[in-house]
Amino acid sequence: MTAVFEKVLIANRGEIALRIHRACREMGIHTVAVHSTADANAMHVRLADESVCIGPPAGRDSYLNVPALITAATITGADAIHPGVGFLSENSDFAAMVEDHGMTFIGPSPEHIALMGDKIAAKDAAERFGIPIVPGSSGAITSPDQALKVAEEIGYPVLVKAKAGGGGRGMKVARDPEGLVEGLVMAKNEAQAAFGNDDVYLEKYLDNPRHIEVQILADGQGGAVHLGERDCSLQRRHQKVLEEAPSPALNQTERERIGDIAIKAVREMGYRSAGTFEFLYQDGEFYFIEMNTRLQVEHPISEMITGIDLVREQIRVAAGIPLEISQEDIRFQGHAIECRINAENPETFVPSPGRLSDYHAPGGLGVRVDSGLYSGYSIPPYYDSLIAKLVVHGQTRNECLMRLRRALEEFVIDGIQTTIPLHQRLIGEGDFINGDYNIHWLEKLLSGKL
Amino acid sequence: MTAVFEKVLIANRGEIALRIHRACREMGIHTVAVHSTADANAMHVRLADESVCIGPPAGRDSYLNVPALITAATITGADAIHPGVGFLSENSDFAAMVEDHGMTFIGPSPEHIALMGDKIAAKDAAERFGIPIVPGSSGAITSPDQALKVAEEIGYPVLVKAKAGGGGRGMKVARDPEGLVEGLVMAKNEAQAAFGNDDVYLEKYLDNPRHIEVQILADGQGGAVHLGERDCSLQRRHQKVLEEAPSPALNQTERERIGDIAIKAVREMGYRSAGTFEFLYQDGEFYFIEMNTRLQVEHPISEMITGIDLVREQIRVAAGIPLEISQEDIRFQGHAIECRINAENPETFVPSPGRLSDYHAPGGLGVRVDSGLYSGYSIPPYYDSLIAKLVVHGQTRNECLMRLRRALEEFVIDGIQTTIPLHQRLIGEGDFINGDYNIHWLEKLLSGKL
Repeated sequence: MTAVFEKVLIANRGEIALRIHRACREMGIHTVAVHSTADANAMHVRLADESVCIGPPAGRDSYLNVPALITAATITGADAIHPGVGFLSENSDFAAMVEDHGMTFIGPSPEHIALMGDKIAAKDAAERFGIPIVPGSSGAITSPDQALKVAEEIGYPVLVKAKAGGGGRGMKVARDPEGLVEGLVMAKNEAQAAFGNDDVYLEKYLDNPRHIEVQILADGQGGAVHLGERDCSLQRRHQKVLEEAPSPALNQTERERIGDIAIKAVREMGYRSAGTFEFLYQDGEFYFIEMNTRLQVEHPISEMITGIDLVREQIRVAAGIPLEISQEDIRFQGHAIECRINAENPETFVPSPGRLSDYHAPGGLGVRVDSGLYSGYSIPPYYDSLIAKLVVHGQTRNECLMRLRRALEEFVIDGIQTTIPLHQRLIGEGDFINGDYNIHWLEKLLSGKL
Repeated sequence: MTAVFEKVLIANRGEIALRIHRACREMGIHTVAVHSTADANAMHVRLADESVCIGPPAGRDSYLNVPALITAATITGADAIHPGVGFLSENSDFAAMVEDHGMTFIGPSPEHIALMGDKIAAKDAAERFGIPIVPGSSGAITSPDQALKVAEEIGYPVLVKAKAGGGGRGMKVARDPEGLVEGLVMAKNEAQAAFGNDDVYLEKYLDNPRHIEVQILADGQGGAVHLGERDCSLQRRHQKVLEEAPSPALNQTERERIGDIAIKAVREMGYRSAGTFEFLYQDGEFYFIEMNTRLQVEHPISEMITGIDLVREQIRVAAGIPLEISQEDIRFQGHAIECRINAENPETFVPSPGRLSDYHAPGGLGVRVDSGLYSGYSIPPYYDSLIAKLVVHGQTRNECLMRLRRALEEFVIDGIQTTIPLHQRLIGEGDFINGDYNIHWLEKLLSGKL
């Protein structure tokens, strides 16, 4: 096998840098790790063929330090850069600069990153490409009668939103015509007071949606597949905590429908790389939130149910190789769950960096661990608290749950606090076992309001 | 889910005891670990719900100590015993005694264990059940003319073997009629001298066979499936070193043919449990060696390509539950390789027990580790040197090989010597990469005779 690239610089840290290193190694590609002074002993640095220190601990001085990254890539002779997740992974300027320096950015074109990074342009584009969006008034509401007519069309409850709004100000939920007329007045007043602009518009309001996202993979040359959906409804403060695939809420028809829509959209866009359409889902309908033009933290669950190495495919299509997988080749098998294990107090969620006195990962059938941890490693206090992803696969959701319980029990991370006890609690909850949860469920559970 | 058993006693140690513990845990079954005084700190003892010390270090005083095991099971109230691999796993008396004490033996009936434990009866039974055996004379050879006639039928080369033989004495390979006439005389003389009996018989001689085995699973109630074959040709002193599934040597027709034969045989036998038919394979033909009426060390590679948990199924059918899997349900996917990692000098193969100063297992997509090792654990000197099984899955054999190389590189077992360097050498050999090896290849490689 001829390597698609000679050498890839991994512009990231932690478990995702290790994840990318592994894919490169398995493709015969040499790896360059970069690290801040705080990460000199990180696993991905130890395993990479070469490593370059790119700055002091703070992210803006190291992992977000574009000149340092470009220089590191240039002096090591890397022919491509993988941005990983977070940091510069959705920075279109960085992507463009990498290309300007004659290297390949392992991700989509700067134009697609920019398009999907602009939330309003993204929503317009999504609608244009046939992605279902939240229905509402197309512009500002000019009269109560117009509002009533729009609400009639999209169905109650509806949300009155200030056009200039943000932070929940100028926002009112209306559940019937009387509430709408009242809410309009209140929202307009609040908007005028807060933003000096009383323009409001209407959107369908979703009471209890789930967060469901569709993983796609496209080569920008007409080849495009979806890897099914992930249910990421278990969130705390808009941060995903545990994800599963497939979603316990979707039936096969819904699954195929949204998958086909996603494929059609990326094909029309001419999109190249891995990507994810995020949706709110309620009562059998999908509503576009955003498109992430990068790998997602939770990508392993899609890999587990399809056997496809997403990072490998991402690297191949970035090199201009047409996708060799067709939708018919993808055989969805079983069920997968990912637990994000954070270095945090499992009750207060206060970060808990520090030295690991002991580390032992679970093993056996159907258990995958993506983590840069090792015994004696010190978790630096400067970065995201995600330290390990426990990913479990089973032939059925029940087998997967039982295996996950077993694996959590075997996991040893001593010397710091982790969210393992939170996951152990979560997967013992009846609602979770029944797949009966939405994006508000975890917050309610944690605040004792279930 | 109602547990099929309340409590299972695991009559074994090391990674296989842990393997069985994991399956029980995932089925909601309580586990009882047993251990010698040397194994008090073993991982499976630490993880089990209960544990019982059954004797001093020597295997005959502990893991082979039938009264101690039966007593441990009785006092802990276990309703079944899983014998694991080795030790008492193919002891029909033990199986019968477990049943006599009102517990379930998780394995086949004592009769089937006994039948397959007697090598001559096993070969006769195999032939009766339609399993291909090594062709030869049905009884002693009475004249050179008869020998020539038989050799003509089965084809050269042939092996002249003393009926009373063993250890290679009274054994001659003949490659043509002249050689046969000569070999007959020599073998008869040797046999007379060595055993006081000059009866000899003829068998087809296989120059360069592979060791290929078929995994079956049957419920003794008509339900039977095969999980494909494993190629275990990489052996040193008749010990398997690395196994892969599927075999690079078989084509789909051969695979289905031998699988169908195996299913038909276990169905006719009324066999219940997991089991393995071992064959020599050469030039498209299979020749029965033996049937193992237990789990095999290398069972994980069959699990990886089918997604089926063999220990779970073994437990279920032992409880009398009919197999829920039909052959059509089994979707063979990708390629899997297992490396047996031994605590041994990788060149001299001298055992290397002792304390692990550091232990870190590889992770990521497609990597499974079955091992009871942990940092600080002391490997006792009394038992088999197998300490870890690294099992890797990929969508293709090449992906699997690249992933295995990556995983071996990440594996840290410090403080003792292991056979990791041997595996690293093996998988870099051109013959291995091309799948071009037989049961003699590894010995030749190691002795510099390739």
